[in-house]
Formats: sequence, structure tokens, C-alpha cells
Amino acid sequence: MVNGRFGRFFCSILWAIFTLMPVDHLPAQEKTPLATMPAPARVMQGEGEFYIDGSFGIAMKGYDEPRLARARLRFLDILTKETGTSFKREAEAGSSHFIIQTSGPSAAIQQLGEDESYHLAVSTTDVELTAPNPLGVLHGLQTFLQLVQINEKGFAVPVVTIDDAPRFPWRGLLIDSGHRFVPIAAVKRNLDAMEAVKLNVFHWRFSDDQGFHIESKKFPRLQGTASEGLYYSQDEVREIIDYARDRGIRVVPEFDMPCHAKSWFQGYPQLSSGQDPSQSSAMDPTQENTYKFLDVFIGEMTALFPDSYFHTGGDECDMKEWESNPRIQEYMQRNSIKDGAALQAHFTARVEKIVARHKKIMVGWDEVLQPDTPKNVVIQSWRGPSSLAEAARRGNRCVLSSGYYIDLNQPAKEHYLVDPLGDNAATLTPEQKKLVLGGEATMWTDIVSADNMDNRIWPRTAAIAERLWSPETVRDVDSMYRRLAIISQKLSYYGPRHLLITEEMLQRMSGELDPGPLRVLASVVQPPEGYQRQELRSDFSALNHLDDAVPPESETAREFDQITQRISSGTATPQDWQRAREWLVLWRDNDAKLQPMLKQSFLTQDLAPVSKNLRQVAEIGLRALDDLHDDHPVRSDVKQQNIEFLKSAAKPQAVLLLMPASSVERLVQATKSN
Amino acid sequence: MVNGRFGRFFCSILWAIFTLMPVDHLPAQEKTPLATMPAPARVMQGEGEFYIDGSFGIAMKGYDEPRLARARLRFLDILTKETGTSFKREAEAGSSHFIIQTSGPSAAIQQLGEDESYHLAVSTTDVELTAPNPLGVLHGLQTFLQLVQINEKGFAVPVVTIDDAPRFPWRGLLIDSGHRFVPIAAVKRNLDAMEAVKLNVFHWRFSDDQGFHIESKKFPRLQGTASEGLYYSQDEVREIIDYARDRGIRVVPEFDMPCHAKSWFQGYPQLSSGQDPSQSSAMDPTQENTYKFLDVFIGEMTALFPDSYFHTGGDECDMKEWESNPRIQEYMQRNSIKDGAALQAHFTARVEKIVARHKKIMVGWDEVLQPDTPKNVVIQSWRGPSSLAEAARRGNRCVLSSGYYIDLNQPAKEHYLVDPLGDNAATLTPEQKKLVLGGEATMWTDIVSADNMDNRIWPRTAAIAERLWSPETVRDVDSMYRRLAIISQKLSYYGPRHLLITEEMLQRMSGELDPGPLRVLASVVQPPEGYQRQELRSDFSALNHLDDAVPPESETAREFDQITQRISSGTATPQDWQRAREWLVLWRDNDAKLQPMLKQSFLTQDLAPVSKNLRQVAEIGLRALDDLHDDHPVRSDVKQQNIEFLKSAAKPQAVLLLMPASSVERLVQATKSN
Repeated sequence: MVNGRFGRFFCSILWAIFTLMPVDHLPAQEKTPLATMPAPARVMQGEGEFYIDGSFGIAMKGYDEPRLARARLRFLDILTKETGTSFKREAEAGSSHFIIQTSGPSAAIQQLGEDESYHLAVSTTDVELTAPNPLGVLHGLQTFLQLVQINEKGFAVPVVTIDDAPRFPWRGLLIDSGHRFVPIAAVKRNLDAMEAVKLNVFHWRFSDDQGFHIESKKFPRLQGTASEGLYYSQDEVREIIDYARDRGIRVVPEFDMPCHAKSWFQGYPQLSSGQDPSQSSAMDPTQENTYKFLDVFIGEMTALFPDSYFHTGGDECDMKEWESNPRIQEYMQRNSIKDGAALQAHFTARVEKIVARHKKIMVGWDEVLQPDTPKNVVIQSWRGPSSLAEAARRGNRCVLSSGYYIDLNQPAKEHYLVDPLGDNAATLTPEQKKLVLGGEATMWTDIVSADNMDNRIWPRTAAIAERLWSPETVRDVDSMYRRLAIISQKLSYYGPRHLLITEEMLQRMSGELDPGPLRVLASVVQPPEGYQRQELRSDFSALNHLDDAVPPESETAREFDQITQRISSGTATPQDWQRAREWLVLWRDNDAKLQPMLKQSFLTQDLAPVSKNLRQVAEIGLRALDDLHDDHPVRSDVKQQNIEFLKSAAKPQAVLLLMPASSVERLVQATKSN
Repeated sequence: MVNGRFGRFFCSILWAIFTLMPVDHLPAQEKTPLATMPAPARVMQGEGEFYIDGSFGIAMKGYDEPRLARARLRFLDILTKETGTSFKREAEAGSSHFIIQTSGPSAAIQQLGEDESYHLAVSTTDVELTAPNPLGVLHGLQTFLQLVQINEKGFAVPVVTIDDAPRFPWRGLLIDSGHRFVPIAAVKRNLDAMEAVKLNVFHWRFSDDQGFHIESKKFPRLQGTASEGLYYSQDEVREIIDYARDRGIRVVPEFDMPCHAKSWFQGYPQLSSGQDPSQSSAMDPTQENTYKFLDVFIGEMTALFPDSYFHTGGDECDMKEWESNPRIQEYMQRNSIKDGAALQAHFTARVEKIVARHKKIMVGWDEVLQPDTPKNVVIQSWRGPSSLAEAARRGNRCVLSSGYYIDLNQPAKEHYLVDPLGDNAATLTPEQKKLVLGGEATMWTDIVSADNMDNRIWPRTAAIAERLWSPETVRDVDSMYRRLAIISQKLSYYGPRHLLITEEMLQRMSGELDPGPLRVLASVVQPPEGYQRQELRSDFSALNHLDDAVPPESETAREFDQITQRISSGTATPQDWQRAREWLVLWRDNDAKLQPMLKQSFLTQDLAPVSKNLRQVAEIGLRALDDLHDDHPVRSDVKQQNIEFLKSAAKPQAVLLLMPASSVERLVQATKSN
């Protein structure tokens, strides 16, 4: 028996030795891996659980500030959503079993590269969260919320010690309020979700050819003529900046220039380089007035946005507009500017000086990187990993977005496996690698609306957040998908509507209160990757078709595909065979129920052949299952015919990919032929 | 061939004659009845549809004010949610096919009994909405939104002419922020939904024994000691009042006194009539200081709330608290006050004078009606229809809430069939009937949280809204349920979360991302009616059990019950038989899948016997179906045994009613015995 002071010390040593074994050393079946996302840098799992009930409370120690009190209340709100239990809102230092210890403040304006680390220790009786500053506290609270799960005894958090810090200091999400206005409520709920997955940069883009969606007091015709009244007032912007700061998130504004700038010219045609400003999308880099205007404008906006970084775009200039304008040509000749790219470099250099005079550091897309681009300009790379490496080699800091274009409907694993220090960047020197600051997921809104934006962003952006936070070695795709499904549900407590959108849109497009058979079809189709939506359906005013409604990645199709991999490779379980058969029967029989429903609505009529194809794919799949199961040889002409049909069924139809077609093709390919 | 001026006139006459036939005169199968709720006072349906596409726009004519512009934008937002189409936000008088014509303003502060009528005429090419003032415009816009449905050609509104006005001028929803704080966002989304169903009084209750949830600047210890920081600031209250006014809704505040007042005494114990203020819930009506305090408090609150009416509660006084206090007894004897009720009447008379001095009309619950209650006091009746009639007979105006207690988990039809002028009120004289102003649904929050409040309010409150708006003769329960399902879905566009809550709570309580078998059980259980939740489960801090999650009325159980009625009465269709069998098989087979899941979570363990009962009920049901189908006689002891089991299975278990038990009993009762 051990007691007294030494006893307690001895016990805690024992506890440390026996309960805090690194998780990797434990047999896999003994411990459920933590469902956290991003995965923490270092985890030691122990035995037992900490239980949360109505008596749960948090006490704050050490450095305190109002932001921490608000974080505590926000934490309790989410914990209430997780548990359906209401908690005391007032901190009681004495009786609390959750102690937060903060050493000191973070910077008054959040800086790139601040310490974001935290230490979280959960025992069966107590929780301790310590961090050098409030940023780490914010992150640690989110980790704790991700650890809560229900079991037969209550709401439990496993005994664990976590030491965590991010791999990259710039972990961003771009929301494009230029192509389309994004309502404040949608911005807020996505900031809430960003906090949950420890993203720390909100890259907020305000203008594009299609619109100008922020209030300028200096140049009110910007939003006055190019927003249809849908713009953020400066008060709203300040509100969002405060909201983001509360969540450990910097706000980096982007005003794209000199191109993608058609909207500016509605109110201020003198900025345009075209003879007809309504047809122009490029500013005129040869006019002194352009720089005078931008100086005033950038002065106004740099005063509004406190962050040290200021994004001036610079992507995708159509050089022809300059090169076809005699006046601009004449200027270029006079100043020995050899081509459009050099003219943009000239513009960039001028704008960089303006930005620097207003005490900000310029960020720009790939194209702003030119031979004499100042070394302090941060390059955001969208064209590919080589341009990122190129920036670092030239000594510029850089942020990767190529590979994180979440508007392109790629599966989560493709984004997940893109590493800012992978590919070309892997060959950088250690010093050059330090210039790679991180990455940003980009939610462009060309063909995404506030309706379906959340299911484009979530849950896939959580996988990108893990890439940017967690150790480089965390790359297991199966583990990522397992945890992604869990974080996806938890994110819905924060407000994002990604899990609700599809059903609502199915109801709307079918006019049915219960669109059952349409739901079945929707569960196995995906919008095609890339920009095919634009090519295949040109109406962007109504994003209300099935390709707009379904998530970019079908969970059902992914699971079915994995099962067919196991079946065709001979590693399937009896449950796999049964599940595959159940799904195929469901899909085969769905067409008869769905066809009459599709006729009722103009938005679903073009789905008739997709549904019919699903039936045929399923019929072929069921026969292939039988053949594989019985090891029954198939006539090779029949097999070939089926493969051809499956290949054609896998092509886009009604702007949709029928995902099971290629999985069933795998089954057919695996059958014996004679 | 007809052309020219006469031709157009002739055509419009013809159009009027042939297309605007009253809907009742048309054969039922030709026209789908309008899905509007509340049903308009007068409807003439025509031929054809008006189609909405991206070119849709609205123009305002006549009287204009900013509230109308905001209503137009709000209308476009909902229309975008209904159609997934974005519309031009700027009004274009020339090209618009939807013209709103407003004759003049409504009162600066919305008054009881203002004209709320409107005229809505939809042709295949144009929409005209005319109203004497903005209140009618608001209502007409909501009616139009309810008419939108998708068909094979587009988003269509049927050709129709509607002349509409409410039956009662006081159509309310009480939200009780006294028992529990209700977040501002929840208040707003319920105001949005109130507008959709033309309710016009938001009765907002701020205090009860459990808490005091509004800021008093005069007496800051009210919210300071009894809200845990959860209270509405006066700015927030003003924001809600403006928000409500924008939606044609008056805000009537309630401060319950002299009882249900424990929370007041935490900061101001001198108001209490108990020797121990922490045990007291009644103010002291014998102290002059009480009235001085209330005069200042009521002065502050009547200045904050612009409505002409001010609710001072007055319900459920526990007279013993006064009658057991010697000092109060002595006062009563000295002033010849014979009992507690008379003492409350004394208090009410004093408070009424205070309210009147602050230029407001007092509203109070039943109990404030005493022999000498001033005639201008409005009585809100909660104890039964006889108290409502009694108030009218005494010459007091009155509002019915008895029968509209939506916290009691009654089916929609029970509320729907309660008429403010039915029951005892039917015997009132025409002059007395005019004193019956309308009714109010009451969302008490004793055992309802912000989590599940929306599914207690919606959709059932839409049925009450119809009772209060539509003609007395609109009473068809089947039609009500058909339209209720449609309006329920449309209401979700306005923000209420009633259709989302159950699934979220099932996921949470099971810990499963897809709680399939639990969903099946949840679809056929209901919380018991009345106050049994309190008796059967006493923990109110965690409203996270299945009885909290499921809607008060099971749609599936109601449909199944109707099918069993048709089967037992010999009027069932083959589809009825098939549907009944499918459901019973689903329920029978569900138990085996559900039992392992129930074991995993402490919140579902007590559902094991409920699930087992569902299996047994289904087994008995399937046998009864066979017996009925084959006209097969059943041994009477077996039949009796089954009936006894079904009766016991219909009793509350785990605070839930297993709804199919009584429907299956009907089937068993219908079998022949031998």
C-alpha cells in the first residue's frame, strides 16, 4: 500500500509508465486509434476514459483574456451539441476537472509563424490543457472535442497525452466571393469549421470579372455598380476579422489585379485597358492614373484588414488585350517592355511598392513571379508543384494551392497525398524548404453557389488540413477516410451544411417529400472532375441539377469499389460478397421506381438514361458476381461486349459520372473467358 | 378571329369566365387543391401555370417603404431556395411580370386588428398582388411562395385568384425564454416560419422560477444573478422587435408575476413573500416596495417594447406561500382580503394601474380574471374553453391557448379542431364573440431545449395558424395532414430545423454515423402526451433521449394506423395490404439489427424492451394480416392473449409510446375467433 506525498508521486510515475505507452507500441486490436483530424504530432494513449456529465466545468489559469472566455463558451456550446447536455457556463476554479493553463498572450495581430503548440493530458479524473499562448488553447480545445465519443457508460474521452504543433504555419482556405457573393452566415460557419480542423488562414477574395463584393468608401461605384447590392460592408468585414481572430485565423484579403477586373470598370472605366471597358478585363498598366487609383484603394483596404499580408492576385492575364491596343503597344516600345508578361511584371513591381508603402507584404499568384520580383513577395502556386519549387529556388516564400483545388471534384485522397514538400519541392535544399509556408484549399465559386458550397468544402478540406498540420509521415489513405467520415459528422455541429445539402436539393428537383429512388441514384454518381460542368452545361444562374447536388466524392461508390477490388483479387469476405450483391440488386431494381419520378420534373428528365445505365451496370455486375463465385467461364464476345458497354457507361452523361460502371468492369475483367 | 381593343377586352372576359371557376365547382380529379396553409379565405382556380425562370423580377407600385424592399429581397431569397435559381435583385418596373401594388402605410407600431387583407391574381403571364397596406403584401408574398411547385416544364405557379383576410386578429406563438434561454438565432428562425404561416403575434416570455433572461438596466441583478450570462441585451430585443415588425408580427412581452418569480429574488430578495427567498416563488403583494419596484421595472420594459399590450402573467399562484406567512395573513385580515385568490386580485389591480399609467393594455392568464378585473384587461385562457367564454361573458377580450399547448405532444389534428369560437364559446352572443381575439400556440420549455424546440413547434403550429386565419368551415383533417407535410418541407427553407433534429439526435445517442435500425424504431414511437416526461424521467439537464428526439407525432404510425382502419373495415386497397405487410416485416426484422447497437450507448440501453416489443407487435400483426386475408378463424384464447400483450405494449416504456401496438390491436380485434 502506498500513501502520503511519496505515494502520490510514485503513483503518478507508475501511471506515466503504464498508461502512457506510445500508441504504436500497443497491439492494434487493443486501442481504437484516435478519431482526431488532423492527427496530432505526438500521441500517447492510456487506459480508461474521462467521463463528461452535467457537472463538467472548465477553469482557466495563468494568462487570461476575453478571447479565451469566448473560446470556452464556444467549446461548451459544441460539447452541448455533442452530448445533448447543458453545462454550467460560469467557471468554477475549485470544482473543475478541466484546467486550462495559458502562459501568455499571442500577438495583438495574429502573425505568420506564431507558436500554435499545446499539450493535452487526459486522465480518468482530470484534463489538463497547457499552451504558451491562446492559439494553442484554441487548437487543444478542438482536439478534445474530437475525442468525445459515446459508450455504454456515458460520454467518454480516452485517457491520452498529446503534444501537438503544426508542420506548416500557413494553412488556408480560400473562399471566392468574387465570382459570387457568399453570405456572411456561410462565411461564418466555414470559419467555425476551419477552427475545428486547425486551419489558420482565411484567404478572402472579393472581386473578379463577375462582381465586386466589398464596400469601398473611397470608390463607392465599385460595389455600387458591380454587386447588385450584395456586398460586405466594412463593418461586416471587421466583424468577420474579429470572428476569425477569435478562432485563431488570419484574414488575408485578395483583390485580383491587373486582370479578372471587369467588375471594376463598371464604375471606373478609366482603369480599363480596352477601348470598350465593358469588354475589357485587364487594367491599364501604362496609365499613371491607374496607380494613383490603386494607391488610394490599397490604402483604404490595408487599413481595413490588419493582417501583414495583402494579396493582389495577378493570375491569368490575357496578354492579347494589351498587345492589341496600339496605345499600350506604343508605351511598351517606348519603355522597352518586350511582351505582355513583362508588362505585368512592370505592373506588379509598381503595385508591390504601393503595398509595401502601406506596410504590407504582397502575396500573388504564380504569374507575379518574374526575374526581378522582390524577394519578400509570397507566391501562391496554382499552376503546379514546379512553380512552387521555382519560387523557393528564387528565394521567395510560397504557398501551395495546386493540388488543393476543391472546386474540381477530385477525391479526398488525391488532395491528401499532395505534399507541399513533395514532388519538385522534394529536391529543394533545407533552407529553400523553409520558404514553403504551407498550402491553401481553394473554393472557387465559378460553378458553386452558397447552396452547395459547403459540400464542396467539407469534409475533403479536413484531409488537406491534416496534410498541412500533421507530420509528413501521416499518409495512410484508409485511416484518413475512416476519420474523415467521423470528422464530417462532427463538423456539422459547427454549422456547415454539407451533410444536408444533397437531400434538400433532391427534394427540390424532384418535387417529392421523399425522393427515395432518386436518392439511390444520387448515392452513386459524381460530378465529373475538372471544368467539364462548364463545358457540358452552360447555365450558371441555376445550379440546381443533380451534378450540383451530389458531393464530389461518393462514399457508396468508393466502398463498392473497394469491395470489387477485394472480390477480383480473391481477398473478399462473405460480408463483401453479400454487400456487393445487395447494392447491385438495389441499383438494378431502382430504375423501375425512378423513371416515373424523373418524368415529373424538368430538372430530372435528362437523368432517365443515367438511371437506365445504372440498372444495366447492376445486371452485368450481378452476372459477373455469379460467374466469379461459381468460377464459371464467360463467352469472350459477351465479356467484350459488356466491357464496352461499361466503358461507355463510365463516361459523363447528364454531367454525371456513374461510378459503379468502372468497378463492375473490374469484376467482369476478373471473370474467366472461354 | 378576335383582335384589337375589343378583342383584348373580350378575351379577358372569356378568360375570367372560363378560367376563374371557383375551385369547388371543378371535378376533384381535374385540379390539385392548393397546397397553401393557412388556406385562403377565397380561391378561384384557373387553367395553366405561371412559370418562374431566371428572368423573374418584381416591381413595386404605389406606396413604398424600406420594409417592402426588404420583404421583396427576403421573398427572392426563399424563391431561390425553392428553385435553386438566382434572380435579379434590383427591381425593374418595365420588364417585371410580378407587380405589387400597395395603397398606403400600416400603423407605425403594428396594431391589433389592422387590415391584413390582400388580393393575389396569377395568370399564365403575370402576377398581381394588391393590398391596402404592407401587412397584406407580406401575407400575399408568402401565399405565392407556397404555390410554387416543380413540374415537367419548370417551376410553376397555378393560375389562380385569391382574396384573403384573416378570421382572427390575434394569431400567436408563445416562446418561453423563462424556463430556458432560447438563442437569438432560434428566435429568428421561428419568426421567419411564423411569417410563412401568417402568425402575427410573438408572445415572448422572459422569466420564470428557473431564470431571468432579459437585460434590465434599472435592476441589473435580475439578469446578473439569474441568467448564467444567457440573457437578451436590450439591443438584441430591439433587433428582434424590428425583425418581427418586418414580418408583420407584433412582439408582446411577458413578465410573469406575482408567482413563478423565484429568479427575481436571487438579486432582489426583498420582493419575495417567503421567509426564505431562495425557497419562495411568489412576490409579496402586501409591501408597498414591491409596487415601487414593479413601477420602475414596468416603466423600463414598456419603453423597450412598443406594442400596446403588456403581459404580466399571473398564472398558478401557490396560495399557501401567502396563507402560511403570518405577516401577510395579518395584512389580509386588516384589509379584509378573504383568501389568496383575493390577494392576487388585489395585486393584479395594482399592477394593472401601473401598466395603464405606462400607456399599455394588460394581458394576463386566466387567473387574473376576478370579479372586479378592469374590462380592458385581455385574458389568455389556458385552463380550458370555459374560462375563455367566461372572460367574454364578463366583457373582457380574450385569447385562447387551451388546446394549443404544443409542448404536450398531442397530434396536429387535436389542436386543429380546437376552435376559439367552439365549445363553450359557441354559446356566446355575437357581441361577446367579437371579444374573442384569436389564439396562441404555447411553446413552454420546461422539458424542451433549443435542440428539439423546432420539432415541437413545427409543423403542428401551421395547423393552429390555419385554425386562426382560415374560415371556420376549413376543418378537413385529411386535407390538413396532406398540406401539413408540404408546408413542413417549405418551412425548412425558412430556417427551422424540425426536419433535421431527429436524425442528428439519433446519430448522437447511438454514436453511429448511420443509425439505420434506430431510425426504424424512432419512426414509430412518440413521447407520451401531457407531462409524463417529467414524471417518468426527472433529469432535465440532458434532453438527449429518444423521447426528446422524435417528433411529437409519428407520420409513419399515423399512416399505418389509417391503413389498419381500412383493412379492418374492409375498404383497403391491394396497395394498403402490401404496405402494411412491408412495414410489419421491416419492424419484425429490425430488432435483431438494433439490439447490438442499443448496447453500445448508455442513452439507448433502456430501449431494448421497446425494440423487442416492436418485433412482437409486428409478428402478431403479420399473423393477423394473414388471418384477415384468408378469413381464417383464430383461437379465442390466443386472440385474447395477443390483445392483452398489445394493450401492455401500448403503455409508455422508456418514456415512449409504441404507436403501432394499438393499430395492430385493431387488426387482431377484426379477426374472427372460434
